[in-house]
Amino acid sequence: MRRIPRLRSPVAIEEVGPAVDGGRYPARARVGIPVEVTATVVQTGDAVVRAALRWRVAGRRRWTELPLEAQDAEHWSGRWCPDRPGAYEFTVTAWTDRIATWRARGTAWRAAGEPIDVDAIPLLREWRRRLRRCRGSDRAMLRNLIDLGEAGAWDALLGTLQSPAVADRLARLDRRPDQVTFEPARRLIVDRERAGFASWYEMFPRSFGGTLTEAARHLPTIAAMGFDVVYLPPIHPIGRTGRRGRGNSDSPGDDDPGSPWAIGSPAGGHTAVDPALGGLPALDGFLAAARAAGLEVALDLAWQCSPDHPWVHEHPEWFQHRADGSIRYAENPPKRYRDIYPFDFFGPNSAGLWRALADVVRFWAGRGVRIFRVDNPHTKPFAFWEWLLPQIHAEFPGSIFLAEAFTRPGTMYHLAKIGFDASYTYFTWRTTPEELTEYFTELTRPPVREFFRPMLFTNTPDILPPILVRLGRPAFAARAFLAATLSPLWGIYSGFEDLERDAIPGTEEYADSEKYRVVPRGGPPPPGNLRQFLRTLNTLRREHPALQHPNHLRFLAVEGPGLLAYERWSSDGEDRLIAVVNPVPEAAREGMVHLPEDLGVGDAPFEVEDRLTGEVWTWRGRRNFVRLDPSDRVAHLFRIRPSAVREAP
Amino acid sequence: MRRIPRLRSPVAIEEVGPAVDGGRYPARARVGIPVEVTATVVQTGDAVVRAALRWRVAGRRRWTELPLEAQDAEHWSGRWCPDRPGAYEFTVTAWTDRIATWRARGTAWRAAGEPIDVDAIPLLREWRRRLRRCRGSDRAMLRNLIDLGEAGAWDALLGTLQSPAVADRLARLDRRPDQVTFEPARRLIVDRERAGFASWYEMFPRSFGGTLTEAARHLPTIAAMGFDVVYLPPIHPIGRTGRRGRGNSDSPGDDDPGSPWAIGSPAGGHTAVDPALGGLPALDGFLAAARAAGLEVALDLAWQCSPDHPWVHEHPEWFQHRADGSIRYAENPPKRYRDIYPFDFFGPNSAGLWRALADVVRFWAGRGVRIFRVDNPHTKPFAFWEWLLPQIHAEFPGSIFLAEAFTRPGTMYHLAKIGFDASYTYFTWRTTPEELTEYFTELTRPPVREFFRPMLFTNTPDILPPILVRLGRPAFAARAFLAATLSPLWGIYSGFEDLERDAIPGTEEYADSEKYRVVPRGGPPPPGNLRQFLRTLNTLRREHPALQHPNHLRFLAVEGPGLLAYERWSSDGEDRLIAVVNPVPEAAREGMVHLPEDLGVGDAPFEVEDRLTGEVWTWRGRRNFVRLDPSDRVAHLFRIRPSAVREAP
Repeated sequence: MRRIPRLRSPVAIEEVGPAVDGGRYPARARVGIPVEVTATVVQTGDAVVRAALRWRVAGRRRWTELPLEAQDAEHWSGRWCPDRPGAYEFTVTAWTDRIATWRARGTAWRAAGEPIDVDAIPLLREWRRRLRRCRGSDRAMLRNLIDLGEAGAWDALLGTLQSPAVADRLARLDRRPDQVTFEPARRLIVDRERAGFASWYEMFPRSFGGTLTEAARHLPTIAAMGFDVVYLPPIHPIGRTGRRGRGNSDSPGDDDPGSPWAIGSPAGGHTAVDPALGGLPALDGFLAAARAAGLEVALDLAWQCSPDHPWVHEHPEWFQHRADGSIRYAENPPKRYRDIYPFDFFGPNSAGLWRALADVVRFWAGRGVRIFRVDNPHTKPFAFWEWLLPQIHAEFPGSIFLAEAFTRPGTMYHLAKIGFDASYTYFTWRTTPEELTEYFTELTRPPVREFFRPMLFTNTPDILPPILVRLGRPAFAARAFLAATLSPLWGIYSGFEDLERDAIPGTEEYADSEKYRVVPRGGPPPPGNLRQFLRTLNTLRREHPALQHPNHLRFLAVEGPGLLAYERWSSDGEDRLIAVVNPVPEAAREGMVHLPEDLGVGDAPFEVEDRLTGEVWTWRGRRNFVRLDPSDRVAHLFRIRPSAVREAP
Repeated sequence: MRRIPRLRSPVAIEEVGPAVDGGRYPARARVGIPVEVTATVVQTGDAVVRAALRWRVAGRRRWTELPLEAQDAEHWSGRWCPDRPGAYEFTVTAWTDRIATWRARGTAWRAAGEPIDVDAIPLLREWRRRLRRCRGSDRAMLRNLIDLGEAGAWDALLGTLQSPAVADRLARLDRRPDQVTFEPARRLIVDRERAGFASWYEMFPRSFGGTLTEAARHLPTIAAMGFDVVYLPPIHPIGRTGRRGRGNSDSPGDDDPGSPWAIGSPAGGHTAVDPALGGLPALDGFLAAARAAGLEVALDLAWQCSPDHPWVHEHPEWFQHRADGSIRYAENPPKRYRDIYPFDFFGPNSAGLWRALADVVRFWAGRGVRIFRVDNPHTKPFAFWEWLLPQIHAEFPGSIFLAEAFTRPGTMYHLAKIGFDASYTYFTWRTTPEELTEYFTELTRPPVREFFRPMLFTNTPDILPPILVRLGRPAFAARAFLAATLSPLWGIYSGFEDLERDAIPGTEEYADSEKYRVVPRGGPPPPGNLRQFLRTLNTLRREHPALQHPNHLRFLAVEGPGLLAYERWSSDGEDRLIAVVNPVPEAAREGMVHLPEDLGVGDAPFEVEDRLTGEVWTWRGRRNFVRLDPSDRVAHLFRIRPSAVREAP
């Protein structure tokens, strides 16, 4: 015979969310964005049930509690807004509200003309008992209720209990019968704002005058375009052995600087700064200049070595050796990369390697760097990241790791689940309205939105999207608009602002790539450049909480091919924007855009303002005409003038 | 510094299914229906990965392993068919296939004209080491591979490895590098066939001649209609106090037999059989007669007492007492049921009650009963069922509990998650094509299908669906067809076969309900009755595995309003049926039914046979005309004649 359980509540709690894989991994949230908690609360019998959300910083004992609201008979929801980063726990608790239950039953009995005095006895007895421990206004309230009951003034009693103030105070006095709490609590990692809301600018410092000191002079120009993170590809000494020449040639010229990803020379490895860039002091100056310009610096973590890296001689056991004793190059059959040795993360001697790599991150974090763009994390073992990331997050709060994982979606998502704070995406390969709708629907809905933060780069040193090459300025504008408004995390790689688009024909690679040469940058911008437009986009992103929310995105119906329309809105629903884009701007596109029903626009005319230009149009009803001619513009970002809006979603 | 993990596999496993709430509750399966296991297997790097399904009876040590197949680069699936009921565990394991990885890389190098001899060295070394431990044909195979390698015959070696037989044998010889296994294993409860595939017939035995002995004479007639479970409402002595009269009257006549749910009199309680039904010996005879007729008997578990139940005097502490000392009637404000006392499952003395109720189930199980229909389980605490059901399932393997939980969907689903083997549904309130499509889509898709077995009763003593009253015979036929073909579990309450449809006007209640009187049954069936049709339906359910599968259901497009079409198919895909129904048969309905694309019918004419009548039609292409005139028929159950079918889904 099984033991009879002590807790025999009529209430049970299921499906507490947000949850990732049923609680296997923590969900992600961001300071300042409310966490929307949901739960299914089921019950036997007909008692009135209450439910509350509980949250706490992980490791603390005390919970903070907030009431949940019933969305229907079984589904509850509520929100709380974490104001500090860190690891949290949350759960849902539910119990019987005896007063409300008694009131509901009593009211039904009275309505049927049935007596309720016998049913009232236990309640009065309870109140009398509690009265002894009460003082002040609580005491007066209880005394009044007891008097009504003793006088048989049932309708007056039931009426008094209907007052929310009385009900609240009684609930506070009451213990919580039948209380159950969902276990284990859900885990949640809350990151600082910049982990989920930032505008990145990727630059090769050597192209901006040569040294980091020279490059630092250009930081105000970058800040003026509205960017707030400057990401530098590896800044370490570059190897000579196997160096790639200009245009990725096998035979480099003497002046060819080599790829920054071929890390390490006799001048140092992963904790050194290339002397050609001015060494560590120049980096410290760059970091200070960035801070002064309101920019944060992101460094690259590329776990590989040039054959000239000091570790190759000091720790040959950290590399893969081929059967003939040689160190294995990086390879992707049928290609071999003779300027790069990958690490052997799996070898018998890899413990020392793991520790050394963690120390590399500590070294840069120690100099004040808190953002790291991780090169190809999907070619290093999951276990390494599961081991590394929590340590660094704990030792250096606010650390942000962006995964450059161009790989299969499951692997990309797994890296997010195990600790990466944000990730590159397939955005550069999603261009049509259908492709964008499908992809961003997936990214902004459960399960993905609970753990994955999409970073939208318009371009990278490795990816020059063919649409930019083919259509030029309008495509640059459209792609920037999409990236800046579809996700609170976006970025460009330098040259984008000046419409650079020389590709190796038939590929999505830059011709004469900056990876293998110095591109003279920082001169006067060419005519027709996109700098003002980028500044406008980034300014609007700061002004509009709607553009800062990670997943408040819904696509709107458009009658007319080729246009894409979507709504973005803020946590509190106050800020709502309607984006309309011509995403493949090879011709003018026009159509009727359907506004969301809950926007509350009536048949009366109302005004919409394009936040990009300040222009104002008069619209009427839910279907309105939009035409986007690339010779004129490729997008609108509409705000409906307040008078026309009835209520938020 | 965190400890460096020992296992550093490039492989990780996620989302192993079927799973209920991320593994919080066990999934359900049935003997003879393959369990479809799926998993996401992600990896770093580019090795070739293999994955396998492992299952075992819970508590055993040894796993049985079956290969999984890759559906795409990250999604794997496989199936195994449990042949015995019980608690199981399953999981997924994955590892690197070194031979296949080496072969893929070697082939790429060779294609690029690059040497692979150095890469082959570790492989040859491994084979030489293994050769020493090998005998027979394995040894010959390894010897041949080593010879090819030593001779530098790389293309021949790569070619040999391409043979599946060689690859399989090498894989068997290899240890499994990088192996990871998803933990904790998923739980699965496998039930016997009748838990999920059965045709129920509900009967009040007192209406079939008076005693169980008389009623047993009618069992062959019920079996002849194709039913295989006979469900009896409570057969216990009925109380006198507060007895309900005919038509649920407050003032019963002396001959009124009372409601069988008012359980208990001086003649006994939940372990007694009403003397008027012939007592226990008559039940034993009934059980034997049922077995002889190929029928299984289901009893009712109704946890409540008449005021005359022996327990009321022996164990007053098992009931709820009102503040004035009286025992609380069953109430649903503003109604009180004066013939029924509910139990107090929560009281301080309830442990004895719980044990006594478990002993009631044991008593009937001890007499050979294995199916229980549980009355209103949603008014008893979840904890009680979580405590009771596993005990009985363990002590009496094959026990089946059907929840009569007409309540909110979340509570209904929760009862299934915590142990009920099947459940009543909202079927009686889903009549239009849209309602049926929505509801059965929900029931046959994850998450619901993994834990919930829908029982479709066409009617019950409490529910006479208005469509039956309004439309008569065609509606009876349509509702029977729907119930019998939409779920492998269905049932009728007696009278349905003879088109009984006298309702209390404006309600869905039977006029002069059988709950409060004896309805003379078992006489000659009235003209126009449905018995032959029910027999046909139940026969087809036995003949067609397609109708036995719990969730192989998809709705088909129909051009033309009012018709509902769906496909059902067997586990192996061999048996496929197309059902077309006129579900609200108030008029003739016609339209073009779209056959599924993967049915493989071409432009050539093909024949379809209506399994209900044996009629054959010639169709052509994927769109075909169907007309269902209620004066003629309300449904087709088509099978496409084999010659026309190309392949299974």
